Formats: sequence, C-alpha cells, structure tokens
Amino acid sequence: MLQSQLLIKTLKSAPADEPSANAQLLVRGGFIYKNSAGIYTYLPLGWRVLQKISDIVREEMNAIGGVELFMPALVEKKYLEATDRWKVEIGYKIATNNQKLKTDNFVLGWTHEEVITAIAKKYISSYKDLPVAVYQIQTKFRNEPRAKSGLLRGREFLMKDLYSFHADEKDLFSYYEKVKKAYFKIFSRCGLKTYLTLAGGGYFTISNTHEFQVLAPVGEDTIIYCKKCKYAENIEISKLNEGDDCPKCASSLAKSNAIEVGNIFPLGTKYSEAFDLEYQTKSGEKKLVVMGSYGIGISRLMAAIVEVYHDEYGIIWPKEVAPFRAHLIGLETQNQKLRTTAEKLYKDLQKSGIEVLYDDRGDKTPGEKFADADLIGIPYRIVVSDKTLKYHSAELKLRSAKMTKLIRIRHLPQFLKSKIKNQKSK
Amino acid sequence: MLQSQLLIKTLKSAPADEPSANAQLLVRGGFIYKNSAGIYTYLPLGWRVLQKISDIVREEMNAIGGVELFMPALVEKKYLEATDRWKVEIGYKIATNNQKLKTDNFVLGWTHEEVITAIAKKYISSYKDLPVAVYQIQTKFRNEPRAKSGLLRGREFLMKDLYSFHADEKDLFSYYEKVKKAYFKIFSRCGLKTYLTLAGGGYFTISNTHEFQVLAPVGEDTIIYCKKCKYAENIEISKLNEGDDCPKCASSLAKSNAIEVGNIFPLGTKYSEAFDLEYQTKSGEKKLVVMGSYGIGISRLMAAIVEVYHDEYGIIWPKEVAPFRAHLIGLETQNQKLRTTAEKLYKDLQKSGIEVLYDDRGDKTPGEKFADADLIGIPYRIVVSDKTLKYHSAELKLRSAKMTKLIRIRHLPQFLKSKIKNQKSK
Repeated sequence: MLQSQLLIKTLKSAPADEPSANAQLLVRGGFIYKNSAGIYTYLPLGWRVLQKISDIVREEMNAIGGVELFMPALVEKKYLEATDRWKVEIGYKIATNNQKLKTDNFVLGWTHEEVITAIAKKYISSYKDLPVAVYQIQTKFRNEPRAKSGLLRGREFLMKDLYSFHADEKDLFSYYEKVKKAYFKIFSRCGLKTYLTLAGGGYFTISNTHEFQVLAPVGEDTIIYCKKCKYAENIEISKLNEGDDCPKCASSLAKSNAIEVGNIFPLGTKYSEAFDLEYQTKSGEKKLVVMGSYGIGISRLMAAIVEVYHDEYGIIWPKEVAPFRAHLIGLETQNQKLRTTAEKLYKDLQKSGIEVLYDDRGDKTPGEKFADADLIGIPYRIVVSDKTLKYHSAELKLRSAKMTKLIRIRHLPQFLKSKIKNQKSK
Repeated sequence: MLQSQLLIKTLKSAPADEPSANAQLLVRGGFIYKNSAGIYTYLPLGWRVLQKISDIVREEMNAIGGVELFMPALVEKKYLEATDRWKVEIGYKIATNNQKLKTDNFVLGWTHEEVITAIAKKYISSYKDLPVAVYQIQTKFRNEPRAKSGLLRGREFLMKDLYSFHADEKDLFSYYEKVKKAYFKIFSRCGLKTYLTLAGGGYFTISNTHEFQVLAPVGEDTIIYCKKCKYAENIEISKLNEGDDCPKCASSLAKSNAIEVGNIFPLGTKYSEAFDLEYQTKSGEKKLVVMGSYGIGISRLMAAIVEVYHDEYGIIWPKEVAPFRAHLIGLETQNQKLRTTAEKLYKDLQKSGIEVLYDDRGDKTPGEKFADADLIGIPYRIVVSDKTLKYHSAELKLRSAKMTKLIRIRHLPQFLKSKIKNQKSK
C-alpha cells in the first residue's frame, strides 16, 4: 500500500490526556483516532492490526470446532430480565427519543450469554445436537465510569466471545481444556507470554474462572505468580503473598501488575436454567444443557501488544500482527531512476505475497521517514537510496535490531519470502 | 463444514409475522434468527453469505483506491450538532442510566459523514493529501418506526460506507463515475441486475443523487425505467409516467417496485464547511475540501438476492455469494462403506479448495435431506448413495436446474474446481 493513501500522518506530540504507552504510540503513529473518552476510530493502519489479530483468533477458534456467527448489539430487555441482569449499570440503555416507539427496552450488549442461550433453545433439543460451540467477533459497549489507558479500558471495543454447549460437566471441562490451549496459542502468535491465572467465580459459574494475564506496569489487575512453573492467582482471590512458596513447585512467588487479555468461564447450567434450555438424552430423559463462555478482548490485545513491544522511538510489532511485513522507503525520490527502482521493488515484493507499505512521500526528509518507520514499527525496513543503488542493493533492517544489511535488490523478494515462511511454520 | 456442527435446523413453517420471501426463507433455512422486530442474529450460514458479500465489496472498493478503517458506533453530540443532525429522530439516543456519568450525549451512528469529516480535518491540510477515499463495513442503527420485510428494513444492519475527499468538483465527479462502475460490478457479482436511478438531492448534496435499484415486488421504492437503455428515475422526483417515451432513447417506459441496494451522494462542501475542513492549494490558497459519500446495505443486499433468487422450494444462491459452493449429501450413512466414501470425498473436495457443506446427519431421511438442500440453496448438490456407488460415482445437480448427472467420484473434485475457476474468471 502507498503511504500517501493511508489517511494518516504521524504526530510529533503525544496526547496530553492519554498517559498510557498504547494510547500515546497508537495515536501518534496514526493507528487510532480518539473520538470521545474511551471511544476510538481504528484508522487504516490500526484496522489492519485488528484484522491480523482477528484472523489469528478465527483460525484457532475454527481449529477447536468453533463456528462463527454474529449477534445483534441491541439486546432487548426480555433477555436480560431472565437472568436479572437488566439492572446492571455497565450496559448503555437506549433512550426513547420518539414517542411513537417503545425504544426504552433495549441495552447495548456488553456480553451475549442470554442472547445465545435463547437462540440455542431453538436449535438444541437432543443429545445429538451436542456438543456445539459458536463464536463472534463483535463490537461491545460498556458504560465505563473511568474510560482510561487508551484501548485497555474503552467504552466501545472489539471482542471475541465463544459459547459452548455440552451434555454434561465432563464434556464441558474437556472442551474448557481445549480452549485453554487455543488461547495460549493465540496469545503466543500475538507475541505475548500469558499467565493462566486462577480468578474468582461468580453467581453464574460452577467453579473458579481463569484469566489470561500479560505482565505490564499499566495493567489494572495484580497477580501473584511463579516464574518457574507459571502458576498464578489473581490477588483478588489469592491467600498467597509475594515471596511465599509456590503451591505447585515451592519456588518463591512474585507479584506484578497485569493486563487481562482473555477469560474463560465454566458457566454450568445457570443460563440454561434461566432459559429452560434442555435436551433429551439417549434414554429419553430431559436434562439441562451445560455451558461455557470464553472471551478475548481483540482491541485490548492490540493495546497489550504495544505496552509490551515498544521502545523510546515507537512500536515494535510482533510479525504475525504487524500491519505490514515490510516498510519500503525510497530516499531521494526526485531522482527518477531511484523512484523507478523503488516502485519496481514495491511491485515485486507484492507479487511475492509480501505485504508492504511503500513510503512514496516526496516531501519528507530521510530523517522524517526513518523516524516514522520507527514509530509505526513494521518488522522489516527496506531502504533504497543513491548509496545502496551503487551496489544494486537495498538496506534491510529489523525494527527489533540495530544491524543493517545490504541485500541485492533482485534477491530481496525471495529472501523476505523465505524469512516469513519460516516464521509461519514455527 | 459438517452440517451437524452448524447450530442450525431448518424449520418447516415460516414465521407468521414475516411475510417477505427473504425473511421466510432465511429464517426457515437457518440463516438468520429474529431477536426482536428488525433485529436479527446472523447464524453461521447467514454470516458466511454476509462475509462473501463483504469480501466482494472490499475487493471492488480496494480496486478504486478505497482504504478500509472502522469508526465507532457511539457518536457524540458535538459531531451531529455541527450539521444540525442531532435532532434527527432516526438516531437511537443513549440514555443516562448512571447519574455519575454524562451519557445522554451519544447517538448510535446511522451514517458517519460528520465523524469522518472531523477525522479528515486532522489528516488533510494540503493538496498533497488529496484525493483520498476511506470506507468501512460496520453495523448501523436506525430507530425505524416500521421495521419490516425482514432484512430489507431493519433497526440494526450491516452497511458499507465510503467517503471520498477531493480538491475540486471535477475530481469528485471523476471519482463518482469510478464508484458507479465499481457498484455495478459488485451487484453483478452478487447476481443482481441494478438500475442506476436518478433520485432527489438534499440539503447536503450539490446535485441529484443516484440509487442502485433492483426490481422486486417487495421493494419500497417505485421507479420509472427504460428496459432498453436502462435509464431510470425514482418516482419521487420523476415527472415521467409509465408508457411515456424514454427521454434518452424514446422507448416506452415501465414502472416497478424496487429495492434500493446502494446510493451515491455528491456531497460537495456542506460537511467540510461545517467542520472547517480546508486544504492549501499549490499556490498557497485555502480551499474547502469537496466530498462524496457512497453506501451499500450489505445485509439488505443479502435480502434482495433472496427476493430475486428463490423458488417454491427455497433459495437459489448465485455462486459468488453462496455460503458454500457444494452441498455433499451422504444417504444410507449407516452403511460403513458409503460413509467412508462420502467422508473421503468431503476431504478431497476441501483439499481442492472447494467450500463444501457435508450433510453428515444420520437421523434424516433422503427426502428430508433433499428438501433441506433445496431450502438452503447451495449451487452444487452432490449425492452419494448405494445406487451411485455401484457406478463408482456421485450424482451432481445444480440447484438452478432439474437435470442430474453421474460423475466418477475420483473425477469430481477436479471437475468442480474447473467449473468454479471458470466462473471466477468471467
């Protein structure tokens, strides 16, 4: 893609009211635009990152038999009254603004357990219909009293929610373990090391729940964790303290702020009870369906990645979630030969299946272009200049490293292609 | 995909309160679930169709230089006050449900001209930043007094909105023509013949606007059109009558109900004026940016396709938007050999890149399976039975035709692959 077409300009100064690294760097880099407190536009660069994350999530959800669907954001009162959640203040209610309509009985969904249970009731009636798992990637809304930390706690955000339906608890917990593995894989592909953290249960769950936590100073949660065996508990439920022995391996426990990027809930039968979601067993008995629900904050994940992967110059995207794999920079583009070479390389890279952003801007100095590339944080930077052209080469640099390397321009597409392929097969 | 995993069951009877063909067939076929009046869940089959349509729209938007982004649904009062559209009743307002928060100054976006103009102001300041075009595919909300006709007029729906920014009207109208062509291509790939219809302008446009209309009895619009040269006007602005001479080719004009699937607006400078969106010309002058906006109702398009493509038995999806290309049906699957053959064929079809739905259900009669296949409407039906196996073959049938044909099972993946490839290259 041509950088001149992106409707982005990097900004020199960071927004004063947004102290978190993710908000500062994502706004400055032209990934997001702040519309209101806790409400952002995902600009083309940011939207690309969100799509990369969403694609990873889709692949791993499909791999464990999840099927994608899409539920409405407008949730009618009848759904939430069934579980007494209509009164929950976190939901944005829809006002009557036209006296001819009854529009005061809707809330913007912040989660969809009730809606999916009501839907499931139409399609599940026999043991033959179980198990089944469905998910969606959808905008969610929360009436946050304190929208803060950029995309970490917003009023409108992108979320993946998966719901599973089972004949019994044994089948639920067997699937629960599959989801755990899928979640670790998703976060790992996003470059994040996560701790599976024991957290509190709730009225709606049959046991403790689990969270996936990323260590980060900006995180709102605090966890007690074992560096050695990875055992972790949310401090909210933990009786353990920093320095105590790990209950699993007896190492000394550490404590840290952390960002919750995912959570999984063994719901049991609370929702199926509320909606009378039963199935007929092989022997003709009626039984309540056993459910689980599993969330991942897609836009929060983008923020968490930035919190972990940045330096003083900007973002350093892990490869699978980078908006582009390569950032091609043409210097001295007033030189016709150089511009022709850069444009040909741009096309050759695209032909090789490499997603490339081409800085074709004619009115920027090399210094400005390099600073922008560091801020935007695409993994491979490729520079074509008068100097490199003398060697029929381009300069290649990893955003995460200092070293540069000259590579023959005609070898470059194949070289990058093999690099990217190796990363994917890992 | 396995049909048993889809969380769908076809329903024998159609919903009584939904007389339109699209609502009846999409609900019965398990494509959508009605949550509330005008509010639907897209079940896995329906979501696949919407994704196919969205992908076509993306391809054609990208081809004319559109760049994708994603704006918020929550739109703050300040945006709509700038153009005096805060008072418009079609917007769902967000109620204050927590006295600590000021949440009574948001509306759910039903269109995003104001938001994108405010964003553009941050990134457009020079002639060098123009032209630029951005689009999104997003859930929109309308406080419809009469939600009706299934997905044709909903309260929550999926929409593509494109916005373009230009230095002058000449550039706008040159892009406007490109969008026209892209729209015809999109609708044609969706199997729809559309009439480009002259429609009324508005306070915010600099001339008449254009709509893309699909002839259909259920359509809420009425158009006067020429069968020969395709000239068309919306009856709301037309001085022409049925039987009059076409102003372009003098043929006799016809009249029909029609569904508006897209519209394009030459906005001019009304929004840039409201937000003071100016740019500096080459000679240093300040000028207002000239804008256009262009919509396609993605979910309405799905409904329009069903209105045009159905018969007494169900939907007949055009190939590019079908949820799957092939529907594999195994009969007598209690026969182990037959089941093994069907499963192998299922995998071979997938390996050949053919999207296939496999009816693996063991408790359905052949008659039920055939009826479901006709209702769901996937282009190619493939039946494997004791009878076809005698000839090492499967029975192939187009949903749109009556004839069946026996084809050697080992030739089938390659045969279908070549068929699909030919369709795509058209």
